[in-house]
Amino acid sequence: MNRLTDHEIEQQLKKLHQQWQLVEGKLHRVFLFSDFVEAFGFMTRAALLAEKMNHHPEWSNVYRRVEVDLMTHEAGGITQKDIELAQAMDKIGIQQ
Amino acid sequence: MNRLTDHEIEQQLKKLHQQWQLVEGKLHRVFLFSDFVEAFGFMTRAALLAEKMNHHPEWSNVYRRVEVDLMTHEAGGITQKDIELAQAMDKIGIQQ
Repeated sequence: MNRLTDHEIEQQLKKLHQQWQLVEGKLHRVFLFSDFVEAFGFMTRAALLAEKMNHHPEWSNVYRRVEVDLMTHEAGGITQKDIELAQAMDKIGIQQ
Repeated sequence: MNRLTDHEIEQQLKKLHQQWQLVEGKLHRVFLFSDFVEAFGFMTRAALLAEKMNHHPEWSNVYRRVEVDLMTHEAGGITQKDIELAQAMDKIGIQQ
């Protein structure tokens, strides 16, 4: 899995929710939910997907807020795997 | 729920795993597991307890590592609730 170039990242970011940004070399997004149950429910769904993809996020949670950073350590940058995980999170991160 | 004094916190820390420390006014501990499944399994159990206690952690996860910070915002410091949540996390955070 090769790391994406800056130009490729820019192109791929268009596929993602506009809140994704490149912050310190990682794909960064904050998800806000109505409460802790919704926030942790999102994390649980995302965790199962991440484990299946064998690609795991760096993330933190405070009550209804989930902050996510994605990068691929083995590649030393952002790869297509990060884009895919971000897309999956966008899909399940939509408040019902 | 009143915030504990420094002396009270010092006393209460003796009840907790020795890795708990007071860092920037919060109870702080790092939990290390064998892999992501174990780490997120711990988080899931802790999340259910936290929701039941209506007292939620600030926490972050990177693969097999879970970092926890506890404090009580309404009290502006550490309360007995934080000690209780820390104790509960110690209990479920033991690697099988």
